[in-house]
Amino acid sequence: MPEVTAYAVASQTAPFAKTTITRRKPGPTEVFFDIVYAGICHSDIHTARGEWGTPTYPLVPGHELAGIVREVGSEVTRWKVGDHVGVGCFVDSCGTCEFCTGGQEQFCNGEGRTIWTYNSVGRDGVPTAGGYSTGITVEQDYVCRIPDSIDLQVAAPLLCAGVTLYSPLKRWGAGEGTKVAIVGLGGLGHVGVQIAAAMGAEVHVISRTDAKRDDSLRFGAVAHHATQDPTTLKRLRGTFDLMVSTVSGDSSLDAYLACLRPGGVFVDVGLPEHPSTLRLGSLTSGNKVLAGSQIGGIAETQEMLDFCAEHGVRPQVEVIGGEDITAAYDAVVNAQVRYRYVIDTSTFDA
Amino acid sequence: MPEVTAYAVASQTAPFAKTTITRRKPGPTEVFFDIVYAGICHSDIHTARGEWGTPTYPLVPGHELAGIVREVGSEVTRWKVGDHVGVGCFVDSCGTCEFCTGGQEQFCNGEGRTIWTYNSVGRDGVPTAGGYSTGITVEQDYVCRIPDSIDLQVAAPLLCAGVTLYSPLKRWGAGEGTKVAIVGLGGLGHVGVQIAAAMGAEVHVISRTDAKRDDSLRFGAVAHHATQDPTTLKRLRGTFDLMVSTVSGDSSLDAYLACLRPGGVFVDVGLPEHPSTLRLGSLTSGNKVLAGSQIGGIAETQEMLDFCAEHGVRPQVEVIGGEDITAAYDAVVNAQVRYRYVIDTSTFDA
Repeated sequence: MPEVTAYAVASQTAPFAKTTITRRKPGPTEVFFDIVYAGICHSDIHTARGEWGTPTYPLVPGHELAGIVREVGSEVTRWKVGDHVGVGCFVDSCGTCEFCTGGQEQFCNGEGRTIWTYNSVGRDGVPTAGGYSTGITVEQDYVCRIPDSIDLQVAAPLLCAGVTLYSPLKRWGAGEGTKVAIVGLGGLGHVGVQIAAAMGAEVHVISRTDAKRDDSLRFGAVAHHATQDPTTLKRLRGTFDLMVSTVSGDSSLDAYLACLRPGGVFVDVGLPEHPSTLRLGSLTSGNKVLAGSQIGGIAETQEMLDFCAEHGVRPQVEVIGGEDITAAYDAVVNAQVRYRYVIDTSTFDA
Repeated sequence: MPEVTAYAVASQTAPFAKTTITRRKPGPTEVFFDIVYAGICHSDIHTARGEWGTPTYPLVPGHELAGIVREVGSEVTRWKVGDHVGVGCFVDSCGTCEFCTGGQEQFCNGEGRTIWTYNSVGRDGVPTAGGYSTGITVEQDYVCRIPDSIDLQVAAPLLCAGVTLYSPLKRWGAGEGTKVAIVGLGGLGHVGVQIAAAMGAEVHVISRTDAKRDDSLRFGAVAHHATQDPTTLKRLRGTFDLMVSTVSGDSSLDAYLACLRPGGVFVDVGLPEHPSTLRLGSLTSGNKVLAGSQIGGIAETQEMLDFCAEHGVRPQVEVIGGEDITAAYDAVVNAQVRYRYVIDTSTFDA
């Protein structure tokens, strides 16, 4: 049984501490890979701090894993030692229900449901532990290939942030001739701008302030709009075919829905803590759509990685060590990261 | 200039009173038709009573018009005297903007925008007056053909209620193999049940009480669920591919969204007076969609009429006279109508 070094929290308020955890020896259809980089997603923070209910402690978060295959099971044909691979938010599912066979394993309703990368229970009955660790054993079909042209540290955030934006942008038709707004320029939004621009859309960023204007344009937006100017949303009325909101604040949606053209779609991928309010008339007037979107399936995640490789979509990361995770959490909450922290696991054994 | 008899209100609180109004002599591309029946839609009441802002008084409501062509303009080729025709919520639009050419004249953003059947201003600068009258002059392209197999009194409600339900049911895929819930069994809902069943869907009705259970089944539903039993919505969790809400109450959406399967769609066609609340997580968990839908374009309205003719979809109406309109409004507000009042204009000259 391989032992790996990991960073875990013991409670809602504890700092991260180095520990050792045990991974399964890969079964016939499994691979073990060395995690080289792991991204920090805001959901890690919500979970670790018990903001979405009490998780199982000690908790090793992390669902943006990028690494290199070290060992493959006897029946594994898709992977070989040395392959660059990634894992996102889930590591297993039933594989046979309509959602699994339809490429939406994140909604598995079969035996055991979707098994999440951490804070879940694996088929072996053992609680899952995530990417803030130096290695993991995963069923081969839940692993994605990281194209050679994407550095592993840059690839890590794509496994969650990338597919979270790619999936709704594709489903709802971002492309040539469409005007797309990305609401919020953070870990998710800055990838969304790049993907939407690569799809051919005219991309606008809607942000609270003007502070990130240059970054918006650098990532491929044609315009940056700051909502601290109270006239901004009024000025944008009837403008967009598609808006993707990555923010977790703002409880009133009507002003945003008014920025859609008739038939337009507003997709939420953020996870606001509080209920939102809207007048349903904001949707009926203009046949508008308010949709939610939650990551993507394995095939779509692979498609997204290949798309990002081909179109030069690259998250902007700040690489940190294991001892920096606790401080990084505060920086994410305070919106100080530009734009995604990625943990370098080579620092774990220092 | 043809004079016609009409029923109008002079203020928010006035009862309906008989009056005479003047219609245009049909221009070269217009038709004049005798209105034989006009449906009463809840929006008529909201407008007449000033609940959606102050309308122009005196107001002649009515946007569910069914009648017989009496006169056609010199260049009219599509219509001849004696044709059975109907008009819905609008009577004109620019005809050239992307929404008009795309079959969504109700969202016209060209010169003059959509001209509504009443409480709007026509191209001639004259306030429009609706269907509670014995005749109307309309541009030929804004008139629909009522198939011979549908009686005019039954056809009237289809012009608004019919297309209001047909459009979202078609757009969002009601059909064989899908489970559809119609929320609210009133003037809109009872047509929606029939249309969804005719499309091949397994139709369920969600109503406040059990009072209309037999009607639900008669209209084609396989089940009727009463929400006065507090366990009902919990029991229905994860059940439906599509839900269409025709109600104007209920300010919390989460319990309804929970009744959708992953990827499911909840469409609102009702017009609640108050804002609604929802947790956006109700949409992200399961890639769900909350959409609005507002009537339909001319081509779609015609398609709906032909569909209803072919599939035996028939609104259940109560025919009333002009002197009954004021009382009928109260009965609609108190949900006592089964299921749509239709005004017989032959009573106007009694």
